[in-house]
Amino acid sequence: QGELVDKFKRIFARRGRSIILAYDHGIEHGPSDFLENPDSADPAYIVKLAKEAGFDGLVLQRGLAEKYYDGSVPLIVKLNGKTNLYTGEPLSVANCTVEEAVSLGASAVGYTIYAGSGYEWKMFEEVARIKKDALRFDIPLVIWSYPRGGKVKDETAPEIVAYAARIALEVGADAMKIKYTGDPKTFSWAVKVAGKVPVLMSGGPKTKTEVEFLKQVEGVIEAGALGIAVGRNVWQRRDALKFAQLLGKLVYEGRKVEELAGEVQ
Amino acid sequence: QGELVDKFKRIFARRGRSIILAYDHGIEHGPSDFLENPDSADPAYIVKLAKEAGFDGLVLQRGLAEKYYDGSVPLIVKLNGKTNLYTGEPLSVANCTVEEAVSLGASAVGYTIYAGSGYEWKMFEEVARIKKDALRFDIPLVIWSYPRGGKVKDETAPEIVAYAARIALEVGADAMKIKYTGDPKTFSWAVKVAGKVPVLMSGGPKTKTEVEFLKQVEGVIEAGALGIAVGRNVWQRRDALKFAQLLGKLVYEGRKVEELAGEVQ
Amino acid sequence: QGELVDKFKRIFARRGRSIILAYDHGIEHGPSDFLENPDSADPAYIVKLAKEAGFDGLVLQRGLAEKYYDGSVPLIVKLNGKTNLYTGEPLSVANCTVEEAVSLGASAVGYTIYAGSGYEWKMFEEVARIKKDALRFDIPLVIWSYPRGGKVKDETAPEIVAYAARIALEVGADAMKIKYTGDPKTFSWAVKVAGKVPVLMSGGPKTKTEVEFLKQVEGVIEAGALGIAVGRNVWQRRDALKFAQLLGKLVYEGRKVEELAGEVQ
Amino acid sequence: QGELVDKFKRIFARRGRSIILAYDHGIEHGPSDFLENPDSADPAYIVKLAKEAGFDGLVLQRGLAEKYYDGSVPLIVKLNGKTNLYTGEPLSVANCTVEEAVSLGASAVGYTIYAGSGYEWKMFEEVARIKKDALRFDIPLVIWSYPRGGKVKDETAPEIVAYAARIALEVGADAMKIKYTGDPKTFSWAVKVAGKVPVLMSGGPKTKTEVEFLKQVEGVIEAGALGIAVGRNVWQRRDALKFAQLLGKLVYEGRKVEELAGEVQ
Amino acid sequence: QGELVDKFKRIFARRGRSIILAYDHGIEHGPSDFLENPDSADPAYIVKLAKEAGFDGLVLQRGLAEKYYDGSVPLIVKLNGKTNLYTGEPLSVANCTVEEAVSLGASAVGYTIYAGSGYEWKMFEEVARIKKDALRFDIPLVIWSYPRGGKVKDETAPEIVAYAARIALEVGADAMKIKYTGDPKTFSWAVKVAGKVPVLMSGGPKTKTEVEFLKQVEGVIEAGALGIAVGRNVWQRRDALKFAQLLGKLVYEGRKVEELAGEVQ
Repeated sequence: QGELVDKFKRIFARRGRSIILAYDHGIEHGPSDFLENPDSADPAYIVKLAKEAGFDGLVLQRGLAEKYYDGSVPLIVKLNGKTNLYTGEPLSVANCTVEEAVSLGASAVGYTIYAGSGYEWKMFEEVARIKKDALRFDIPLVIWSYPRGGKVKDETAPEIVAYAARIALEVGADAMKIKYTGDPKTFSWAVKVAGKVPVLMSGGPKTKTEVEFLKQVEGVIEAGALGIAVGRNVWQRRDALKFAQLLGKLVYEGRKVEELAGEVQ
Repeated sequence: QGELVDKFKRIFARRGRSIILAYDHGIEHGPSDFLENPDSADPAYIVKLAKEAGFDGLVLQRGLAEKYYDGSVPLIVKLNGKTNLYTGEPLSVANCTVEEAVSLGASAVGYTIYAGSGYEWKMFEEVARIKKDALRFDIPLVIWSYPRGGKVKDETAPEIVAYAARIALEVGADAMKIKYTGDPKTFSWAVKVAGKVPVLMSGGPKTKTEVEFLKQVEGVIEAGALGIAVGRNVWQRRDALKFAQLLGKLVYEGRKVEELAGEVQ
Repeated sequence: QGELVDKFKRIFARRGRSIILAYDHGIEHGPSDFLENPDSADPAYIVKLAKEAGFDGLVLQRGLAEKYYDGSVPLIVKLNGKTNLYTGEPLSVANCTVEEAVSLGASAVGYTIYAGSGYEWKMFEEVARIKKDALRFDIPLVIWSYPRGGKVKDETAPEIVAYAARIALEVGADAMKIKYTGDPKTFSWAVKVAGKVPVLMSGGPKTKTEVEFLKQVEGVIEAGALGIAVGRNVWQRRDALKFAQLLGKLVYEGRKVEELAGEVQ
Repeated sequence: QGELVDKFKRIFARRGRSIILAYDHGIEHGPSDFLENPDSADPAYIVKLAKEAGFDGLVLQRGLAEKYYDGSVPLIVKLNGKTNLYTGEPLSVANCTVEEAVSLGASAVGYTIYAGSGYEWKMFEEVARIKKDALRFDIPLVIWSYPRGGKVKDETAPEIVAYAARIALEVGADAMKIKYTGDPKTFSWAVKVAGKVPVLMSGGPKTKTEVEFLKQVEGVIEAGALGIAVGRNVWQRRDALKFAQLLGKLVYEGRKVEELAGEVQ
Repeated sequence: QGELVDKFKRIFARRGRSIILAYDHGIEHGPSDFLENPDSADPAYIVKLAKEAGFDGLVLQRGLAEKYYDGSVPLIVKLNGKTNLYTGEPLSVANCTVEEAVSLGASAVGYTIYAGSGYEWKMFEEVARIKKDALRFDIPLVIWSYPRGGKVKDETAPEIVAYAARIALEVGADAMKIKYTGDPKTFSWAVKVAGKVPVLMSGGPKTKTEVEFLKQVEGVIEAGALGIAVGRNVWQRRDALKFAQLLGKLVYEGRKVEELAGEVQ
């Protein structure tokens, strides 16, 4: 009854809430995501950043974990991935098994489901195998739940995000990453229907201003989420360390953006 | 020769007939089904309701069973599921094995077949594997038989529902859930062609009035079915407990709707 | 070298020729096939009929075998099936393994191949696995060979039926069920190219008059076939027992329809 | 380094060159190929012919091998096949495993690849499994290499036949069967790019005159091939035995067609 | 953490940088690639060339490795391949397992991924199985990373080549082969985002002049790549040995094309 949820929280939310550093953009979007801060192209830079800024966890694909992970921050190995060059029905398949993720040092595994896709069923089939393995290896399963294709018109519409949250719960997630709906009220419905499964908000593209992203994070926490999984909004900024500290104040300490006005650009 | 049919009845029809609480709507329809009674979004609320109202069984997807099931009511783990965001040929694949369902406390497993779909064959293939496992684990297999796509114009047409019933029998169901045809006479043909396999009527969307649903249930019992598997018609009502009692009078005691006139809204 | 052919004949053609009762219509056509004789909807009625009329064998899908078969007549478990609601490329996949068929009491297993279908290859793949298992369990494999789709314009054209027969031989059938070409001369070519593999004529829809069907059977025997596998032409008649006796005179005794003129309606 | 090539030659080219009798037409083309010489419909006739005419090998599908092969001539079991009723992307899948072929008495296994097909990859996948098994069972693999579909306009164009030969070499054939280009010069390029893998010319449809086919064979030998695999050009002739002797003079003795003028019709 | 990268370098870059002889053109392009230098059609000629010119490695498909490889030069068995007759969505599937490659004498295995293809996911699935096996057999995995189809307009555009490099890193390559972008500056970005995984430039079609290809190689080395994997630009030249020496001066000694002016045609 949710022991792996507890395990996830013990490892990735030691301070009660969680800020995860996401870095699977190399396969999902390609290296153009790294142009804004060329240092970010180097996985070693990211691993160091995760440690120095005190992130609760780090998300890597198997190839990066194999060649760069040093054990300094709890690791989530993202098991599947696709490129954005692919234009077929949304489908992301595993390029790593749970067993291999464990041997790479993972404390959790991640898997994306594109519900609504014409290949929805392939991802449901695969997540079932992964869930089974995750139970066998006693490792939490984090689901990236991003409805796409089919009837999905707007990926951040409240009813779509809530549906995303529920899908993750129903198929056996121990934590989930979903998109932000835009306001705490609608996001809190997603958090509610996620039930016992903790919710991480997916950071998304770098916002124009710092305050814009911080406001989102504030809303996410207000809505009752466990925290955030953030990538570009941290490592596309050259002052990533300082920005990470701001995030901590909102997430761990529950402070409000307006309280931090002096510290925000 | 039908030992698992007997086992199903012993567990899920202790009073001779059966009322099952269905709650797989989170994956099939999304959380919008819970808006009418927001409490219903919480699986804990549903598990409590099933116990307090004395339901004969409860249907959950693996994720909910894992995190909420407490053993108080016999469990059917629904092995497959799809979202209604998916617009391809009807296809629902297993996200859980029979073995896992058993370890989650299931006393039966459920599987949907969309005969008529361009993927009919994939579900026939999968149900064969599940049937084999169900025999190995000595656990009854309940088939949700919902013809859809292909030549199916009207999913509740008598000849379609009867075909649905027969398919479930032919592929090895130990119990089945089929849609109501609209009247006891045509539904009795479906019950007849189902042979030794007990029939549960699928509750469907909440009817406008209580009496409308109760009339359906009356017809189902008159047609010789074992009972009903009902979701929205119970937990979308705020007086779910009281309504469940009415259902019991029709199903277990064989009373008529008109006899209950004073109790129905 | 054909030991399973001999085994098939020993079991299903004890009188030298064979009359098999086919009853897989529930899945293939739906229960509407049972309307003409509503008793026929009940598998128990069919099992009793097979015994009382002295049929050489009985064809059932796994679900019926499991719940109704009593060992009184040699059983062929039909391993695959599809519904006629399905409108995609012809494809019928196994819903039962050879091992399970054996445990259900089967003395032979049946499998349909729709050569010409865009999924021809899937059935060739599957029949290969089934053939392997059939050899392992030392049980004859009966192939329902029904070319459909692709270049097939007329499923009973002589060259198509002969091709059907040859396909069954080439992939390893121990007996085959093929459609009637309409006359003994062309059917005898099919029987010839079937080589050592005995041929059963598929009964097809109930003919307008008894004599029409009996004439077909006469032609089939004249062409050198082992016998017939008949369903609707028996159990859609209320005087099924009597009609079965007529079939026996044609098939076992080699008598001619005109000799039976007084007994035929 | 080619031990199985040597094994193939030791068994199927005892006289230095090879003439194989092909008889997989029953599945590939249907029994209409047998009409010209109705005896040829009977596999027993073919097995006898192979022995009496001294063929170096005989090609049969598994079903024929199982019921007719008597060990008198070295056997190649053709593992895959398709009907010519099928009109989809060229695809031929195995209906027999290497292990089964061995148990049927095969001294080599055959597999067709249609490079260029939209299913090219499925045949590459399957031939890989078969190659693995062939190595395990130490049995030569003969590839029927027939590019078809995709960019292939003319299946006997010199560059297509040469490509066919090379594909067979690259994926691990121990012998290959390819089509004739029409003249020895272009065919010799195919033989060259086939490298260490011996080449058999595929006989194709019966030529109008005997001399036409014999000229082809002459060219094939002139081009350096190991020999021919011939079906219709032998068993569609009523004087098959005599024609086979002519072939032997060209293939084994290297004689020229004009030297045989008196013997040819 | 990259032990197999080190192993790759120890074996294939003994002089610090690497020049690999690629020879999988027989399956990928067909024998027409050999017309310019007909000797090149003979794998034995290529194996000899690799040894005499001191190449650091040789790339062969399984069939060639099996019949021609003599252990004189370290071997990369290319596990997948497709023909250029195929016109479907780019897809290349393995025709050889890692285990078999090892038994053929391979010191590394190669696999092509066409990211962007509608079958991208199939190659990601397969490379995952191959990576797992490569780890089990402790053998480096070289990825040919060639985005094609989907959003890919220009296969050598800098952002596409950089993406290609990153994909190889993310899925677990120990070395990679990518196309040249056309200039050292943009190619160095690809080398950077490849991180710890060494980069080999794919030689491509024979250039019009020697100097044109040498300039490319100069740029590749300037960009920080480990070296090149070259086929047609060597063995389509009749003075292949001499040209290989020129390549060595650029790659191993880091000399510039203009320094070699007297030696270049």
